[in-house]
Amino acid sequence: MKFLRNYWYVAAWAKELEPGKLLARKFLNEPVVLFRTPDGTPHAFEDRCCHRRAPLSLGRMIGDKVQCGYHGLVYTAEGTVVGIPGQTLVPPGSQVRTYPIVERWKAIWIWMGDAALADPAQVPDHLYYTNDDPKWTRVGGYLNFKCNYFLLVDNLLDLTHETFLHGKTIGNEHVANTPLAKVERDETGVTASRWMIGIDPPPLYAKAGGFDKPGMKVDRWQIIRFEPPSHVTLDVGVAAAGTGAPEGDRSQGITHAVCDAITPETETATHYFWSFPRNYKLNDAWTSDFTRTGVHNTFLEDQAMLEGQQRIIDAAPAAPQVDINADGASIQARRMMDRLLAEEADAAPSRAAAAE
Amino acid sequence: MKFLRNYWYVAAWAKELEPGKLLARKFLNEPVVLFRTPDGTPHAFEDRCCHRRAPLSLGRMIGDKVQCGYHGLVYTAEGTVVGIPGQTLVPPGSQVRTYPIVERWKAIWIWMGDAALADPAQVPDHLYYTNDDPKWTRVGGYLNFKCNYFLLVDNLLDLTHETFLHGKTIGNEHVANTPLAKVERDETGVTASRWMIGIDPPPLYAKAGGFDKPGMKVDRWQIIRFEPPSHVTLDVGVAAAGTGAPEGDRSQGITHAVCDAITPETETATHYFWSFPRNYKLNDAWTSDFTRTGVHNTFLEDQAMLEGQQRIIDAAPAAPQVDINADGASIQARRMMDRLLAEEADAAPSRAAAAE
Amino acid sequence: MKFLRNYWYVAAWAKELEPGKLLARKFLNEPVVLFRTPDGTPHAFEDRCCHRRAPLSLGRMIGDKVQCGYHGLVYTAEGTVVGIPGQTLVPPGSQVRTYPIVERWKAIWIWMGDAALADPAQVPDHLYYTNDDPKWTRVGGYLNFKCNYFLLVDNLLDLTHETFLHGKTIGNEHVANTPLAKVERDETGVTASRWMIGIDPPPLYAKAGGFDKPGMKVDRWQIIRFEPPSHVTLDVGVAAAGTGAPEGDRSQGITHAVCDAITPETETATHYFWSFPRNYKLNDAWTSDFTRTGVHNTFLEDQAMLEGQQRIIDAAPAAPQVDINADGASIQARRMMDRLLAEEADAAPSRAAAAE
Repeated sequence: MKFLRNYWYVAAWAKELEPGKLLARKFLNEPVVLFRTPDGTPHAFEDRCCHRRAPLSLGRMIGDKVQCGYHGLVYTAEGTVVGIPGQTLVPPGSQVRTYPIVERWKAIWIWMGDAALADPAQVPDHLYYTNDDPKWTRVGGYLNFKCNYFLLVDNLLDLTHETFLHGKTIGNEHVANTPLAKVERDETGVTASRWMIGIDPPPLYAKAGGFDKPGMKVDRWQIIRFEPPSHVTLDVGVAAAGTGAPEGDRSQGITHAVCDAITPETETATHYFWSFPRNYKLNDAWTSDFTRTGVHNTFLEDQAMLEGQQRIIDAAPAAPQVDINADGASIQARRMMDRLLAEEADAAPSRAAAAE
Repeated sequence: MKFLRNYWYVAAWAKELEPGKLLARKFLNEPVVLFRTPDGTPHAFEDRCCHRRAPLSLGRMIGDKVQCGYHGLVYTAEGTVVGIPGQTLVPPGSQVRTYPIVERWKAIWIWMGDAALADPAQVPDHLYYTNDDPKWTRVGGYLNFKCNYFLLVDNLLDLTHETFLHGKTIGNEHVANTPLAKVERDETGVTASRWMIGIDPPPLYAKAGGFDKPGMKVDRWQIIRFEPPSHVTLDVGVAAAGTGAPEGDRSQGITHAVCDAITPETETATHYFWSFPRNYKLNDAWTSDFTRTGVHNTFLEDQAMLEGQQRIIDAAPAAPQVDINADGASIQARRMMDRLLAEEADAAPSRAAAAE
Repeated sequence: MKFLRNYWYVAAWAKELEPGKLLARKFLNEPVVLFRTPDGTPHAFEDRCCHRRAPLSLGRMIGDKVQCGYHGLVYTAEGTVVGIPGQTLVPPGSQVRTYPIVERWKAIWIWMGDAALADPAQVPDHLYYTNDDPKWTRVGGYLNFKCNYFLLVDNLLDLTHETFLHGKTIGNEHVANTPLAKVERDETGVTASRWMIGIDPPPLYAKAGGFDKPGMKVDRWQIIRFEPPSHVTLDVGVAAAGTGAPEGDRSQGITHAVCDAITPETETATHYFWSFPRNYKLNDAWTSDFTRTGVHNTFLEDQAMLEGQQRIIDAAPAAPQVDINADGASIQARRMMDRLLAEEADAAPSRAAAAE
């Protein structure tokens, strides 16, 4: 899948951007350096000095300015050179590209497309669970997958894979055997919902929610939301069986909301920022550790599979593939992406023409 | 050298294919997964699920079926999908390519070309020494060389290199200084023969055959057989000198038969399955260990040279080269390959046309 | 920057070429093997046997001849095959390319271009400090940088980077803030000179020259000479302040002459032979160790920056760049290179025509 540019992507967890630090990271094939000015405001530059293309990330912060570590050019936080050692004149063109950037939901969001179109109000709110709502607590992490970012979106939009790839932790046979109840596509995304009524609790949830006594049954839900370009939120949980079929009584159970921010690094490498809020045992450190480790290990299973999938795709990129029912949400998401990619490609030349 | 497809290649040693195991290996650039059904029959699939191209080698065996480890599609041993979780209909095209496969001579043989042409009777018999003939015992091994497979064929077809590359073990000056007695090309291969009469025994043979007393002389033979695409058998040995010149009395000596099955992994990587039978000290574990280690170490010397050769070829693929007398067998083998490659290229379109 | 061919490049330190040793190294993309005949004369062959392209560097010296380690072809030091095992006739074309080579200034110099144009008198003399002049002693070393060779030339022609990249060792603010006094281009090279009068001594010099008492000031000079294709000599030092402004009295100070021989390995890899002579504390082992370690560590800082610069250039090779005043010498050097590269390109076809 190609890249949509005029969208907000997560660039880093907010806490990764320490004061005085220059953080190098590649997005959509472009080398970027992230930093905060002393007032805490985050900034993003292309990671390339306008002078001799040294990586600015090898430089340093001087107050609210960035100095190239090679020949000492000094940039304002707006990317304009204001100091060149040994001379007073600053030549025309002495600036670097900056990227619109916003801090929200404990993350730093970057806009890799046309800056004129960047609207902070469009930062997705589906990471709201990372907010400071006292009903929730969260763990989170970062992984780098050596595969195209949309293989990870596909992965999350079809949770039948839990049964086969994650059988030891979150999967059991019911996920695979229960058809998706609904796949709905609207203007801004795709939602897939599945309810499993009166099933054996999967191991991870059984322990986490106290459903691990012999013979206990649960109602389990999975509500998955995709929004372009690559934001996926899973609202998943289990409640005591029979507390509210057909759609259960979620207040009698436990909910996890897996908030996945997936940012392309290159065509075949992906930044994976995951957040895992829960609404129970809020102050329980053991549960936090347990879920952090459990989710991390689960995602390592995904990583091995998706990187294997990428290797096989690379070996024969044109090999055909067969669709199954479980692909419904993924197919809808890919159609939406194809349309948006075509729209961006069409708009780019006309915006260029309008600017003349 | 390009790849001939309509031939049997060794894919694995038989013992590598353990019950319940899925073995991933690449042949002729194609990712393949090998496995046995519970009755012991070996099978080979392309290592790519027809659904979303996950490697099937990351899945599992369920009885006599293979289940993809990602979304759970179940394949019969014939490569046909018979189960898709959450649905009863199997879409058309739900199958993977299978490769003809045969177990013989303690090895698994695979046919990467047109399955309609695969005839198990054509599995080469030049690995007969690996059979259970009670007059022989054998050691063997596997190495992966990062070079084109035909550099290894060239290597084996001109044993003058023993003198220079393997001087510490099997080489001595006589190999290089004795012209090949005969190079014969017939319909199915090339045979090169060399006899060295009344020479000092090379170190490895001296120890192995008890020819290591001061002043002992031997008659030594090397009879090399190449059969396309890349099977080479060496019948080599030494006998007490003067026991039957010009061609010696082999019954008074010891014979090794190096059986080399060389399978292209990619254009620049090669599977090397070697077998080293002998007809003496059949039950002597020390001799087995000694020859296994000695041959392995000898082949590591070849590996360093052939990988160096590949690097130099890559640096200037069009650099000219000079032929010497010792190349006779290799030149014959390459001419045979060129003809067969041209025939396969010619035949492929006409078979395609006939199928219409 | 492309490669000039008809120039002398340093191939190795003289001491690297031990008797009986075959040293493999790549220059201007070509694999070369270096060795000495028993009389001590250095030689250079293409590292590719004319028979089957095995690397000759995996062979051995036999007296004053080189024997291929694969099939035993024997080459004279002039690159001509005089022995082929098992045959007496040597086929036409049995030779390898040799490269003109000269030992001077404790280094081995190679000529990668048209051998007819190689004149040992043209070996640059700007490494004279490595000579046995009793007024000097030296330390030296070798590094391999994964960047284009001219990034390293640029680096040395603009020492303002010392302030920013080497602030902990040789840099201080004065280097960057003092404009180059002169940049002069003549027929054979470019010279840049900078004098800093009455400044604080930089840390490394302060310790080395005994200028480290509180309040001491020095006059500091940097005289940089570039000669194509990539030889750079720095005559740098400090003297007690006020001993001879505007250009100081160098006899009252200490001088270092950094002699940099920069040889392209590939487009993005560079051999860096550095020599660091000094004219003080000639027999002081501690000072030798101190400067060797200090210079080495300083160049490691350069390596990190230049390799980062190469990565950023590779990510967007056509990205524009801005020139600043400090680039004066580098710009002159690049113009000289462009002219010489064009001349070599023009001359090559006409020489070829003349040879017909």
